[in-house]
Amino acid sequence: ILLMASYEIFRDDLERALPFACAVEMLHTYSLIHDDLPAMDDDDFRRGKPASHKKFGEATAILAGDALLTEAFGLMAKAGYELGLGSAALAAMSELGRAAGLGGLISGQEADLESEGRPYAEKDLEYISKLKTGSLIRAAVVMGGILAEATESDLTALSGFGEKIGLAFQIVDDMLDFQGGDGKEKGSDARKKKATYAALLGLKGSEERAQRLSEEGLSYLEIFSGRTEILREIARYLVARKG
Amino acid sequence: ILLMASYEIFRDDLERALPFACAVEMLHTYSLIHDDLPAMDDDDFRRGKPASHKKFGEATAILAGDALLTEAFGLMAKAGYELGLGSAALAAMSELGRAAGLGGLISGQEADLESEGRPYAEKDLEYISKLKTGSLIRAAVVMGGILAEATESDLTALSGFGEKIGLAFQIVDDMLDFQGGDGKEKGSDARKKKATYAALLGLKGSEERAQRLSEEGLSYLEIFSGRTEILREIARYLVARKG
Repeated sequence: ILLMASYEIFRDDLERALPFACAVEMLHTYSLIHDDLPAMDDDDFRRGKPASHKKFGEATAILAGDALLTEAFGLMAKAGYELGLGSAALAAMSELGRAAGLGGLISGQEADLESEGRPYAEKDLEYISKLKTGSLIRAAVVMGGILAEATESDLTALSGFGEKIGLAFQIVDDMLDFQGGDGKEKGSDARKKKATYAALLGLKGSEERAQRLSEEGLSYLEIFSGRTEILREIARYLVARKG
Repeated sequence: ILLMASYEIFRDDLERALPFACAVEMLHTYSLIHDDLPAMDDDDFRRGKPASHKKFGEATAILAGDALLTEAFGLMAKAGYELGLGSAALAAMSELGRAAGLGGLISGQEADLESEGRPYAEKDLEYISKLKTGSLIRAAVVMGGILAEATESDLTALSGFGEKIGLAFQIVDDMLDFQGGDGKEKGSDARKKKATYAALLGLKGSEERAQRLSEEGLSYLEIFSGRTEILREIARYLVARKG
C-alpha cells in the first residue's frame, strides 16, 4: 500500500506498480516467516495464528521464506520485462535489494539477535530499528517514486517520510508487544530480553516519540502537489493503531 | 563459469556478464547453506569443511543464506541499471527467478526431503534432479545467452545443453556421495534414505548414464560457430570429476 500510495502522487496507471507492491509484500512475509523460526526469534504465533514452522514444520517454513524472497524478485523482473519498464524497474529492484540485504534487513535482524540480554542505549536501538524495520518501509515508499520516474528531490522527500514513519512503526510495534495486541505472544520481547523502545522510553514516552516522528514524516509531504491523502492517512494510522 | 562460457560464444566484453555470473554463484551458495541446515538435509560438512551452521550457528547460517539470495538479485539489478542493460538484464533475472523459485530449486528441495525413506521410480528421481540441480545449471547457461542477446533458437540449444549436463552433474554427485568424494560425509544420502541415482542404477549404470547425457548435451553445441571450447570442457569434466 505504501508503494502504491507513493506512486499515485505522480501517476494514475496504478496497475503498472502493482507487481512491485506485491513483491514488497512477499519479501516482507518471507522476513516474518524466517524471523519466527526457532533458531531466530522463536515465536510460536504470528498475526494471531500459529507461525509457519509450527503449522507446516521447520523445513517447509524455511523453504516458504526462500520461495517468497526469490519469487518477489522474479515477479519484479518478469513484470519489468513484460511492461517494458527497463531502467525504472532495475532501479526499483536495486533499492529493494539494498533495503533487504546486508545494508538493511539482514544486519538489522543479526543485530537484534545479538542485542538479546545485553545493555543498550537509544542509539543502538535506533540503529537496529532503522535496519530491521525502517529500511523496508522507506524502500516501499521510495520505490513508488522511482517507478513513477519522480525527480531526485521528490525521491529525497519520500525517503525522509519513509524513514520517519518506519521508526514510528517500530516504536508502536514494541508498545503493542508489551501490551499484547500484535498477534504474537504478549511480552515476547521482554521474555527474550530484547532491546525495545517500550522498555527504554516507557509507554508514555514511546507514544510521544511515535507521534513526533509521524508529524516529522508528514512535513516531508508538503512539497507535493499530487495526491498524498493515503500516505498521510497511513502515517496517522501507524501511530494510532491498537493491533 | 557456465554463464560466462555461454556468453563468450557470442560476445567478447565478458565484464558485462560478470555481475550476473557472480549472482548465480551467490544464489547457489545460499542454496547449499540452507540445504545443509538441521531442519533440512542436516549435513555437518560441505566442501570438506564444517557447514555454515556448524561454524557460525543456525541463526547466522539462515541469515547468510537470506543475504546471499537477496544480494544476488540486488547485484544484478544494480549492475543492469549501471551498465544500461535494460530488458536483457530483466530477462536474465526473470530466468534465474524461475529456476530458483517455486518452479525450480524450492520444489526440488521440498520433493527431495519428502522422498526420504520412500520408494521411488526413475521418473521421480528425474523430476527431483531437474528441479533441484538441473534448473540452476540450465539457467546459468541460458542467462549467458540472454545477456548476449542471442536468438531464440540459440537459447533453445543452450537450454538443451544445460538440461543434459545438469542431470549428468546430479548423477555424478550421487556417485561421489556414495563413494565419499564430495566433501560431505561419505554415504550421507544412503544414511538419510534419499532417492539417488547411485542406489537406483548402481555405480556402473550411473557412469554410463552420465556419459550418455554429457554426449547428448555436447551435440546441442554443434549449431554454434563461436567459441564453445569451455562449455565442452565443462561437460566432459562434470562426468570425469572425482570430487
